[in-house]
Amino acid sequence: MKKLINDPADVVDEMLDGMVAAYPERLRRLDGNEVLVRADAPVDGKVGVVSGGGSGHEPTHAGYIGDGMLDGAAAGEVFTSPTADQLNEMVQACDAGEGVLCVVKNYEGDVMNFETAGEMAAMEDVEVEQVVVNDDVAVEDSLYTSGRRGVCGTILVHKVAGAKAAEGAELSEVARVAEKVVDNVGTMGMALTSCVTPEKGEPTFDLGEDELELGIGIHGEPGTERADMMSADEITDHLTGKVLDDLDLDAGQEVVTIVNGMGGTPMMELFVVNRRLQELMDDHDLQVHDAWVGDYMTSLDMMGCSVTVCAVDDELKELLDASANTPALKR
Amino acid sequence: MKKLINDPADVVDEMLDGMVAAYPERLRRLDGNEVLVRADAPVDGKVGVVSGGGSGHEPTHAGYIGDGMLDGAAAGEVFTSPTADQLNEMVQACDAGEGVLCVVKNYEGDVMNFETAGEMAAMEDVEVEQVVVNDDVAVEDSLYTSGRRGVCGTILVHKVAGAKAAEGAELSEVARVAEKVVDNVGTMGMALTSCVTPEKGEPTFDLGEDELELGIGIHGEPGTERADMMSADEITDHLTGKVLDDLDLDAGQEVVTIVNGMGGTPMMELFVVNRRLQELMDDHDLQVHDAWVGDYMTSLDMMGCSVTVCAVDDELKELLDASANTPALKR
Repeated sequence: MKKLINDPADVVDEMLDGMVAAYPERLRRLDGNEVLVRADAPVDGKVGVVSGGGSGHEPTHAGYIGDGMLDGAAAGEVFTSPTADQLNEMVQACDAGEGVLCVVKNYEGDVMNFETAGEMAAMEDVEVEQVVVNDDVAVEDSLYTSGRRGVCGTILVHKVAGAKAAEGAELSEVARVAEKVVDNVGTMGMALTSCVTPEKGEPTFDLGEDELELGIGIHGEPGTERADMMSADEITDHLTGKVLDDLDLDAGQEVVTIVNGMGGTPMMELFVVNRRLQELMDDHDLQVHDAWVGDYMTSLDMMGCSVTVCAVDDELKELLDASANTPALKR
Repeated sequence: MKKLINDPADVVDEMLDGMVAAYPERLRRLDGNEVLVRADAPVDGKVGVVSGGGSGHEPTHAGYIGDGMLDGAAAGEVFTSPTADQLNEMVQACDAGEGVLCVVKNYEGDVMNFETAGEMAAMEDVEVEQVVVNDDVAVEDSLYTSGRRGVCGTILVHKVAGAKAAEGAELSEVARVAEKVVDNVGTMGMALTSCVTPEKGEPTFDLGEDELELGIGIHGEPGTERADMMSADEITDHLTGKVLDDLDLDAGQEVVTIVNGMGGTPMMELFVVNRRLQELMDDHDLQVHDAWVGDYMTSLDMMGCSVTVCAVDDELKELLDASANTPALKR
């Protein structure tokens, strides 16, 4: 498989330099580290909000650095956790004395390394809290996790925690609203094609021309179920049904929805999915406060999508609607 | 090839409904027409700015409807011009008595139908001006055009004309700044894979595993040159070299650059290209005012990218930086 890259070993390094080159007034790279932070980090009087994980999910996470969202994002190699040293350096660079919230997707390597980094930073007198996102309703345990995986719902956690921190809230409050999102969000994904990593250069799983994979994650791991090809409406019904079964919402509940592209899906198709998703919300008497459509949490060049539903109350609505100014999300 | 669609015949219709479902307070669909307009169109006291063309280039054009950019966008079938009737209805819906500027990509069908629509609207006393965008430096004539094709530079025309109209400028002034962009912008694209249309379901041209296509357009038409696979840096050097040869800029000139994904390209790879592009701008003593990276003008699921360079003066910088609030672009 062909890619727009140079040496696969350099792709993360060159991507990060390319991001800073695009936003030189807004992003800064920590010396000798695959970490990007706000150019003005640490921001005085504000709790730091940081995230990180393997690369290949762009614009996650560095695309969400900026006013009202993240202060820093650590990029591991493709589909590989950043190291504890890397994360510790990020946490310290984003601490203005008010403490730092780490938003962690639930993968064993990420959880372990963020935990170690938090202990390292604590020894330097940085107050650290963690929230672990596990919104994927497809699997209870997977190749990379015990418990559910963290996927596209993570972006809503970034938005809510970032907005709360921007208000000047203290660390425990920022962590509280982040946990509120985690408690109220579910995601289910599917793929028409496997992704291809730069290093391996071929699909991580094979799918026939008449097959699709349901319940995929974001690292090229196979899904929970292989099915014969379905229409966009059938796919949307399936994904949304799984999410709604998990969330078990009351009629009249307000929600925010996301149709997320996996990286190789044309936007045209995401809107076709959104059309059906909004019909389903209506059928279930759910009140849609906001509907996001786009590539938020990708898996390299995978063709496919995920559907996210998050139940929202007045507090979450206000934080989701609050202004944000990042490369990948503006409000 | 698999797609997230229902019946290929319904894909444009369903996409448009899915867009309105995502932004119900901002977008409105004209009854029985594949045209989206601002929910509040026509906007009192403001020149209307509209565009349109075949579908398959999303977020172009409807993604740019909103404050500071477009008032309306007409969607033809995939890679097919909207009809003159469709365009006339859009123009009339976006005229608040101040006239309407049509931004047209240089393809024969689009140019002809926009011209006819302009005549039809003029008979209803709507003042109409047109600007034809032809930024593709790859070919002088092509399968679909006499003269150069209109590609990603069109987005800069939308931004500049939309910002000028938002200031309350009169139609001739809005047209003047749009033409100024056309006179100062060049784009060159390449593909690693052909796109696949919903109707046909297979690639419109075949490329081997060790080949790429240079000078492609945005409709699956083959490029001007087939080459052996190159690195991202070599590709960027080639595309940028062609654009700079065409523009022939003086050292010290200020520019805005775009690395545009063709729809199936991971964002990671676009940033790798941007890294090299910014090095080249530096090598050529060009001053980069702003660097855009993302999917702006796509070709369905094509993997590849284009590089756009636009020379900017104080007037264009101010209009490009002016606030805009659209689904696909916010400033």
